[in-house]
Amino acid sequence: MTFARLGAPGAEIPALRHDGVVYDLRSLTADIDGAFLSADGLVRARAAVERGELAHLPGAEGLRVGAPIAPPGKIVCVGLNYHDHAAETGASVPAEPVVFMKDPSTIVGPFDDVLIPRTSTKTDWEIELGVVIGTTARYLSSPDDALAYVAGYVVSHDVSEREFQLERGGQWDKGKSCETFNPLGPDLVPATDVADPQALGLRLWVNGVERQNGSTASQIFSVAHVIWYLSQFMVLRPGDLVNTGTPAGVALGMPDTPYLRAGDVVELEIDGLGRARQTMVQA
Amino acid sequence: MTFARLGAPGAEIPALRHDGVVYDLRSLTADIDGAFLSADGLVRARAAVERGELAHLPGAEGLRVGAPIAPPGKIVCVGLNYHDHAAETGASVPAEPVVFMKDPSTIVGPFDDVLIPRTSTKTDWEIELGVVIGTTARYLSSPDDALAYVAGYVVSHDVSEREFQLERGGQWDKGKSCETFNPLGPDLVPATDVADPQALGLRLWVNGVERQNGSTASQIFSVAHVIWYLSQFMVLRPGDLVNTGTPAGVALGMPDTPYLRAGDVVELEIDGLGRARQTMVQA
Repeated sequence: MTFARLGAPGAEIPALRHDGVVYDLRSLTADIDGAFLSADGLVRARAAVERGELAHLPGAEGLRVGAPIAPPGKIVCVGLNYHDHAAETGASVPAEPVVFMKDPSTIVGPFDDVLIPRTSTKTDWEIELGVVIGTTARYLSSPDDALAYVAGYVVSHDVSEREFQLERGGQWDKGKSCETFNPLGPDLVPATDVADPQALGLRLWVNGVERQNGSTASQIFSVAHVIWYLSQFMVLRPGDLVNTGTPAGVALGMPDTPYLRAGDVVELEIDGLGRARQTMVQA
Repeated sequence: MTFARLGAPGAEIPALRHDGVVYDLRSLTADIDGAFLSADGLVRARAAVERGELAHLPGAEGLRVGAPIAPPGKIVCVGLNYHDHAAETGASVPAEPVVFMKDPSTIVGPFDDVLIPRTSTKTDWEIELGVVIGTTARYLSSPDDALAYVAGYVVSHDVSEREFQLERGGQWDKGKSCETFNPLGPDLVPATDVADPQALGLRLWVNGVERQNGSTASQIFSVAHVIWYLSQFMVLRPGDLVNTGTPAGVALGMPDTPYLRAGDVVELEIDGLGRARQTMVQA
């Protein structure tokens, strides 16, 4: 059972996929947002479909797939969180999580176009395990409790412009917040359906060539550690998105730095979370 | 004529102050948000009060003063944007704007308490001119046009934890996004009522001792330059907040680094934008 949002940008219909059928969630909620997630919405939706209370969503196959969550209050990202990725970028392994942010309005659907910024020459890919917060997390006492604050998991594409990020004046956010730079989805998978978030394979292809093939088993800081850690510095709120870092294989780390160009096609998948596909288009 | 939001956190009433009277804006809009600002809301409100169409807001004096804008989609900040502040922190003058972000949920009212984070020893103050976006700004062609995209100006307090920002692993956002770290207000002043955003005095006191006394005339990058510049890297949307940097006088730059402690009182004012006052409280 997974959750999706289907329809035109800004007018997505909340939906539930189960056994090949798409159900309309509008009888339960207007959107898959923080209020829904914090009120046990995923559990209530599961119960409703099992009781046969949800209507089918007719014509679902023809609808655009949007990001599976409403625009979040924030996107928090962890940088350099895989040993092999830290090595390929020439960075040392961080002693504690490196944290930065993306503009929440960068989120687009998993099959939407990604815009190459007008002056960009170094647009790069990064597949990441996205974590959606379900319960307000503030000064958590231990990483042991932290996964209880997670509503679900999602494929997240942390598109990055390396010149803007690294060569234009000090902080990374400038290269992380360009328009359309966070394709998300296809589906939100409830945390209860992911047996172990530290055992998920992540793969990314550019024009059919495999570029990233890693596992969350290689994260320096686990999902639980990251959630606990972030909660010491900021309040994580229901519906917020946490991008947990990317494994090796980005353009920045390759001898020929094959950055993305208009027309390139990026495909991404994470075990159990589905597959996404985006075409690069000049802004 | 200025704009405010009055009432309990999360339930603020949009209001307009004019000639000592507080008017209720709810006949025009549910909130002072991006939709209202982008639909010429400030102009329509001005016309409505001049035509006598707005009701008084009874009991306005007894209401809490909230931040004067609804929670924004993002908070973008410019670092080291005054020559004297760059010097006091030991940083060189940046060649182009240094950009970072704050969690939008850090915004609180101008007289609300500010929480000192639990493990903090270096909580610092920063008065800043806050710029509220009125019209979507994307790849602006020139700084000359950029002020047309500004809805108004506001006193913004970019509270900062220097250890979290500078000593805990690489990126600043971690020390900028703690709970309650962006008191905002009291009022939103329409851009049309600010003759020159580069001629505003900014002053900040801690426990009655003046600590910052600068002018936006000393900004390295003007408001217009910042808006134009940001629009090359990200889309600025109606209701977004841009904090444009702080002048000299922060605790980090003083020999005795007198960081904030519980019980300390910070007062801030900017010419024509009003005065705010916050008490520090342990989180």
